Amino acid sequence: MRFSKAYPVVLMSRRAESYDDIVKDIEQAGGNAVGVSADVMDASSLSSAFETIKEKLPNHKLAAAVYNVNTGFARKPFLDMEIGDLQTGLNGAAGGFFNFAQKTLPLLLDSVSDAPSSPTLIITGATASLKASSQFSSFAAGRFAMRALGQSLAREFGPKGVHIAHAIIDGLINTPATQAWSSGGKPDSKISPESIAEAYWYLHKQHRSAFTQEIDIRPYSESF
Amino acid sequence: MRFSKAYPVVLMSRRAESYDDIVKDIEQAGGNAVGVSADVMDASSLSSAFETIKEKLPNHKLAAAVYNVNTGFARKPFLDMEIGDLQTGLNGAAGGFFNFAQKTLPLLLDSVSDAPSSPTLIITGATASLKASSQFSSFAAGRFAMRALGQSLAREFGPKGVHIAHAIIDGLINTPATQAWSSGGKPDSKISPESIAEAYWYLHKQHRSAFTQEIDIRPYSESF
Amino acid sequence: MRFSKAYPVVLMSRRAESYDDIVKDIEQAGGNAVGVSADVMDASSLSSAFETIKEKLPNHKLAAAVYNVNTGFARKPFLDMEIGDLQTGLNGAAGGFFNFAQKTLPLLLDSVSDAPSSPTLIITGATASLKASSQFSSFAAGRFAMRALGQSLAREFGPKGVHIAHAIIDGLINTPATQAWSSGGKPDSKISPESIAEAYWYLHKQHRSAFTQEIDIRPYSESF
Amino acid sequence: MRFSKAYPVVLMSRRAESYDDIVKDIEQAGGNAVGVSADVMDASSLSSAFETIKEKLPNHKLAAAVYNVNTGFARKPFLDMEIGDLQTGLNGAAGGFFNFAQKTLPLLLDSVSDAPSSPTLIITGATASLKASSQFSSFAAGRFAMRALGQSLAREFGPKGVHIAHAIIDGLINTPATQAWSSGGKPDSKISPESIAEAYWYLHKQHRSAFTQEIDIRPYSESF
Repeated sequence: MRFSKAYPVVLMSRRAESYDDIVKDIEQAGGNAVGVSADVMDASSLSSAFETIKEKLPNHKLAAAVYNVNTGFARKPFLDMEIGDLQTGLNGAAGGFFNFAQKTLPLLLDSVSDAPSSPTLIITGATASLKASSQFSSFAAGRFAMRALGQSLAREFGPKGVHIAHAIIDGLINTPATQAWSSGGKPDSKISPESIAEAYWYLHKQHRSAFTQEIDIRPYSESF
Repeated sequence: MRFSKAYPVVLMSRRAESYDDIVKDIEQAGGNAVGVSADVMDASSLSSAFETIKEKLPNHKLAAAVYNVNTGFARKPFLDMEIGDLQTGLNGAAGGFFNFAQKTLPLLLDSVSDAPSSPTLIITGATASLKASSQFSSFAAGRFAMRALGQSLAREFGPKGVHIAHAIIDGLINTPATQAWSSGGKPDSKISPESIAEAYWYLHKQHRSAFTQEIDIRPYSESF
Repeated sequence: MRFSKAYPVVLMSRRAESYDDIVKDIEQAGGNAVGVSADVMDASSLSSAFETIKEKLPNHKLAAAVYNVNTGFARKPFLDMEIGDLQTGLNGAAGGFFNFAQKTLPLLLDSVSDAPSSPTLIITGATASLKASSQFSSFAAGRFAMRALGQSLAREFGPKGVHIAHAIIDGLINTPATQAWSSGGKPDSKISPESIAEAYWYLHKQHRSAFTQEIDIRPYSESF
Repeated sequence: MRFSKAYPVVLMSRRAESYDDIVKDIEQAGGNAVGVSADVMDASSLSSAFETIKEKLPNHKLAAAVYNVNTGFARKPFLDMEIGDLQTGLNGAAGGFFNFAQKTLPLLLDSVSDAPSSPTLIITGATASLKASSQFSSFAAGRFAMRALGQSLAREFGPKGVHIAHAIIDGLINTPATQAWSSGGKPDSKISPESIAEAYWYLHKQHRSAFTQEIDIRPYSESF
């Protein structure tokens, strides 16, 4: 992770399996990483995770926070859905981000005066943040709502010096999970995770006279 | 209401006070109107309302349905909000519309073959459906999500002959509730409810070779 | 043409063949129509056309004007283009509309005080008004520029009572020229010209408290 | 200029005064810079400028090209405009960029196979690339058209390995020319030119699996 060259990095996920390997990688590269388990949909779980972080990194302020949630996005005809399907989309994206922003924004505001770069909150969006395809109503509803939250927060907290950015990841990310998925067959046609990290690092380093609110990221080979 | 010149009209709201006067107006003008109380956030309340409608209008198919919800939109700094504030915005707009669409789409599909105009489902959106202002995060999140649902449904049900349209009402509506609110002082600077009804009626009457998915409606005097 | 039921209609085109049949149709239906030849890219040709109109309809004010230009839109790789290809796209769409608006806006402003409906200027846009596809750079540049002009004029002339609207025609129109083109094979999968006329008529009739600036029109069967 | 740390830089402008100081600055910092006079609206002037560049840097391929044009943007009521005002906006933005892209794209394509970073063509857009304000019709028409060209080229040349990006500069740039202009009085409320250079450098360095097509850049203090 690009950030670990400059800062201690906190990785938060529901299950330790999601971050254990990355923590080891960062530490082997000479960086400092802390893994914490938490469920963003559960405010008290999130609170105790932030307590843990404070204990493990008592002398650090928060420089940047990245929200990235995987709610799944199974294609489903609308009339086969139940209200619970909609809530899964809305809670994971908008609800989880709401809780995450409630916890991180006070810490980011507290960093404004003495941080080398503007404290930054980045939201990971998707193609469905802008366009709601047939049979993806729940997924898109959550992504649209999360983008709305990011826009509103950018307008509220930007003038206070906190940079809120929304990245639209328009393509498959090259991960073990997408290994088997086709993306057209050309080389580099899946987004490299390192490139996303570089983008987020660049957003974090932007001077406050030149914040980006929304950026799209897609493989050169992707049609759009 | 423009529709009552051509069809029996069903008015549904949580409280009878919201529709009693309109029902009387329609009946005095020679139309046929039925008022039903229901809470769209409550699926069983909605189900029994649709049972009532079926009893009162046994020989009619559903020609058009309009979703319009007033969740309130109090300006609130993000860090003063609780998760319940977000849920109010999301449930009223996206959740309520989800329930409403689940009930009306099967009826609208059933009307496709013999309706004089394409069966129509119209969503009433707002400026905040496209732009999330500072301190309106919950309201905008709900409106963005509702727009996503409408877009997805248009792509799924349009090809089946059901017209799904989303109207962006960009300005104050001229109602008793907004009487005291200023809108710049020029005449006709608040949207007349009759004009919205005309817009919805026009959308309903569109030929299926020429559906509109999104329309904006704003006073001539409104800056945008 | 929908407008001819209410008003005398002026049809302007470079060649008389383009309007002769429509003029006859309108007159046979009991309406009043005048055909005038003019080249919108040529300001003096346009001026003399408006002189002719004034002579033929001396007692009428201008109620509505529709701009619709066919610049052709041949797909062409960018490096095979010459600057003249770009200018064809820009001049036909943006330049022609500029000349047309210069002539019609003073007449429309003059109609504001006593017209039954708000004087209206409608621009016919296309899918390419919003999205510039590969190898359609010239066509899209002209359509984007024309949309910009419409937006700016709506903001300048709306508050003065002239309604400026932009229609995005997203699909094939059912004309003799498109007869041979496939649009998926479903019935009504090409936009009926009558439906566009109905849309424009509805836009013209909108109350000034509820103007639409942009409307999309597409067949129910069109994917988008 | 950020690029001069890695590459020889060519600066092209109508007048030598526009680049002379920057060339000196780059050379004093140990970089290599070439200034060339050319008028992008004049294809032959542009051709001879590219001949000059080839002579001065015979062993270099083109790594990146940035298009930035200042057409002026005087506010002007539409009915006070002449067709020449429109053409100034269209030719400077869309026409000039067309000529520039015609010259640079073959060179950028030629660099794809052996360049360390993807060859890049960046367009400098403005707030008016997305929104056409009242009385800015000519300026906005040019900016809309230029954005269309960029979008179309991104779709055509991205899959060939050339990165086409469009930057929306939404705020005043901190230059001698804007010194006297107010931007709200907060520190850093005008965009620093170095920040724009950093953004363009970042876009140039993006991996081809993660191209950005459009980025917005605005001061933290700017309302939007």
